[in-house]
Amino acid sequence: MKTISTNTSHGGVQGVYSHVSTCTHTEMTFSVFVPPHKKGETLPVLWYLSGLTCTHANVTEKGEYRKACAEQGIIFIAPDTSPRGPDINGEDVPNDEAYDMGQGAGFYVNASQAPWDKHFHMRDYIETELPALITANFPMADMSCQAITGHSMGGHGALTIGLRNPDRFKSISAFSPIVSPINCPWGEKALGGYLGDNRAAWAEYDACALIESGARAAHILIDQGMADNFLDGQLKTHLFEQACAAAGQAATIRLQDGYDHSYYFISSFMAEHIAWHGAHLKGSAV
Amino acid sequence: MKTISTNTSHGGVQGVYSHVSTCTHTEMTFSVFVPPHKKGETLPVLWYLSGLTCTHANVTEKGEYRKACAEQGIIFIAPDTSPRGPDINGEDVPNDEAYDMGQGAGFYVNASQAPWDKHFHMRDYIETELPALITANFPMADMSCQAITGHSMGGHGALTIGLRNPDRFKSISAFSPIVSPINCPWGEKALGGYLGDNRAAWAEYDACALIESGARAAHILIDQGMADNFLDGQLKTHLFEQACAAAGQAATIRLQDGYDHSYYFISSFMAEHIAWHGAHLKGSAV
Repeated sequence: MKTISTNTSHGGVQGVYSHVSTCTHTEMTFSVFVPPHKKGETLPVLWYLSGLTCTHANVTEKGEYRKACAEQGIIFIAPDTSPRGPDINGEDVPNDEAYDMGQGAGFYVNASQAPWDKHFHMRDYIETELPALITANFPMADMSCQAITGHSMGGHGALTIGLRNPDRFKSISAFSPIVSPINCPWGEKALGGYLGDNRAAWAEYDACALIESGARAAHILIDQGMADNFLDGQLKTHLFEQACAAAGQAATIRLQDGYDHSYYFISSFMAEHIAWHGAHLKGSAV
Repeated sequence: MKTISTNTSHGGVQGVYSHVSTCTHTEMTFSVFVPPHKKGETLPVLWYLSGLTCTHANVTEKGEYRKACAEQGIIFIAPDTSPRGPDINGEDVPNDEAYDMGQGAGFYVNASQAPWDKHFHMRDYIETELPALITANFPMADMSCQAITGHSMGGHGALTIGLRNPDRFKSISAFSPIVSPINCPWGEKALGGYLGDNRAAWAEYDACALIESGARAAHILIDQGMADNFLDGQLKTHLFEQACAAAGQAATIRLQDGYDHSYYFISSFMAEHIAWHGAHLKGSAV
């Protein structure tokens, strides 16, 4: 692991790091905020998965999470959204031509289809490789006490990874998540491209399908802005609400008047999400 | 005035606006955050002047001021740092060749020397033109109740504009300000370029010289990071401390261990500055 930068902030340390990933066969960059803590103390961990076009940097600069993490004593980890590099996309999808496929758009899946299957293994990266790297390099991280959140495509990632790993994550939240990629244009393109035409293989990457097939989480919180341009066509929050209601999965889904899809929305509710996770991570939630 | 964007955030509205300035003869962009408020209610105003290379966007994205402004009921205005455009710098200083002179580096002066005197009138812009534009377009702004802050070159701007206008600003704060441009390389280059070789003309743009010549402010707060690479060579906080002590000007100057010159530092103490200004703006400070 290489340290790219560290900055003192809100009494803790905001770091940016990189490493060569065995999942993606590329150099991957991520950020970690470690709040102030006593020597030898261990702290719970909150993962934040970012949305389409983002890197670790967007939430690190605009997410306004450090004050709340310092107050709650929670480590905040922001991975990248895909492998990156000059030669890692398929010949038919040159870099930067599509914002919703390829670089910046890993959709937190393990791709099975060429050319994506060479590098696009973001599921394994988040589920296995990066947690092991954190364990090895951040001794103050209490890996028995984790939660997960994310935005848009990263909200999809948080919900699906959280629902598939209920023993690892004590709570799941999301900001304007893609709740059912099976049922929206972004998701159909990405899952079709990464996983092929057999839709049966898509189900483990769809939060609604996971709920329908019996996956459960202890605690789920979603905030969705009502002025979000992607709500009707891509995000479709109501599908998750319906899936949870039908399955008896408790979920707090809040529709926020006036808010759009931007970090101006995310940052407005970030502190509430962190306090909510903090209560569940520390076992003090009502 | 043109509206470039508005986003709901922290219960208020973060806007970005532009207008054609009569001071700079260019289009100028600025941001205004209006916190949630009752219809007809007026709110105090905090100006934030940015540092070298910055536009309105840096603090708007990274400053973490909206939560505190929403809690305090304070309007936050972030102007640009200079006129901008393809043809506004002198032939001898092409765009983007120097980060500490020309575009992004207006130093909040009225330039008297060619070629800068055509456009670089940031003092008049902040002291006269932009307040009038705010008065005309933001009826909820209580222009009888203003405070000013800023970072680095913008900390210099906040201190000098604040000290020259004690009736307008109830309180002045700064993050890692250039306290004496007369006595540092950035300042000598900029003031020499904009104002010419006669150093007598520089004094009204130097916070220490203003204090020495009798300017006073009711309340001054400065935060300075001790891991700031520019502290010894450019910022020289101790010169302001000495000038205030010699003149009997009260000032709270806090040296913050471990913090550097970045927005990771500014955002760490932004909420405290806003609460401090809020107390003075509302007359409730101890």
